Amino acid sequence: MPTKRRGAQKDHRAAFGRQLRSLRLDRELSQEALAERSGLHRNYVGGVERGEINLSLDNIHAFAHGLAVDVRTLFHDDGAATRATQRAPRSR
Amino acid sequence: MPTKRRGAQKDHRAAFGRQLRSLRLDRELSQEALAERSGLHRNYVGGVERGEINLSLDNIHAFAHGLAVDVRTLFHDDGAATRATQRAPRSR
Repeated sequence: MPTKRRGAQKDHRAAFGRQLRSLRLDRELSQEALAERSGLHRNYVGGVERGEINLSLDNIHAFAHGLAVDVRTLFHDDGAATRATQRAPRSR
Repeated sequence: MPTKRRGAQKDHRAAFGRQLRSLRLDRELSQEALAERSGLHRNYVGGVERGEINLSLDNIHAFAHGLAVDVRTLFHDDGAATRATQRAPRSR
C-alpha cells in the first residue's frame, strides 16, 4: 500500500479517537465508565482515543452501544484526515 | 460478553457486508475490481460481503476510498441488527 494511504490510516484512527473522546466527554463519562458500558478494557479505550489502535467493526459497534449512539455518529469527524495536520489538539 | 451482544456483532458484520455489496453492485464493480481499488484481496472482499469478517477501521476506510464514498455511507444499513432476523436476504 502506498505511503499516502498509510498516512491516511493514521489520520483516520486519530479522527476516530478524537470523536470517541468528544462523545464520551459530552456524556461526562470517564474512560473506565465507557469501557464498562462497552464491554472493553479502560486501557483499550485510552489507546483508541489516542489513535493508536486499528479497532475492529465489532468494537466500533461496542462503543456505539456503550455511548448509545448510531454507529455513524462515531464517524462524525470523517474528513479530518486531510485537516488533521492543520488543527490544534483538543484541550479537553 | 453476553450472548445477546455476540449475536448483535454477527448482525453488524452481516449488515456491513450487505451494504458493501450493494454499493459495489450500484457501481457495477466486480469483487476483484473493488479489491483492486481498495488495496485488498478479492477473497477478503467476498468474506466481508458474506459477513464473515470482523474487519478493521483501516480496512473500512480502504473500502470507503475504493468506493469513493464517505465512510458513514458504509454504515447506511445500521439498525439492521434488530431487523435482520425479520428480513429475507437480498437476491442480488
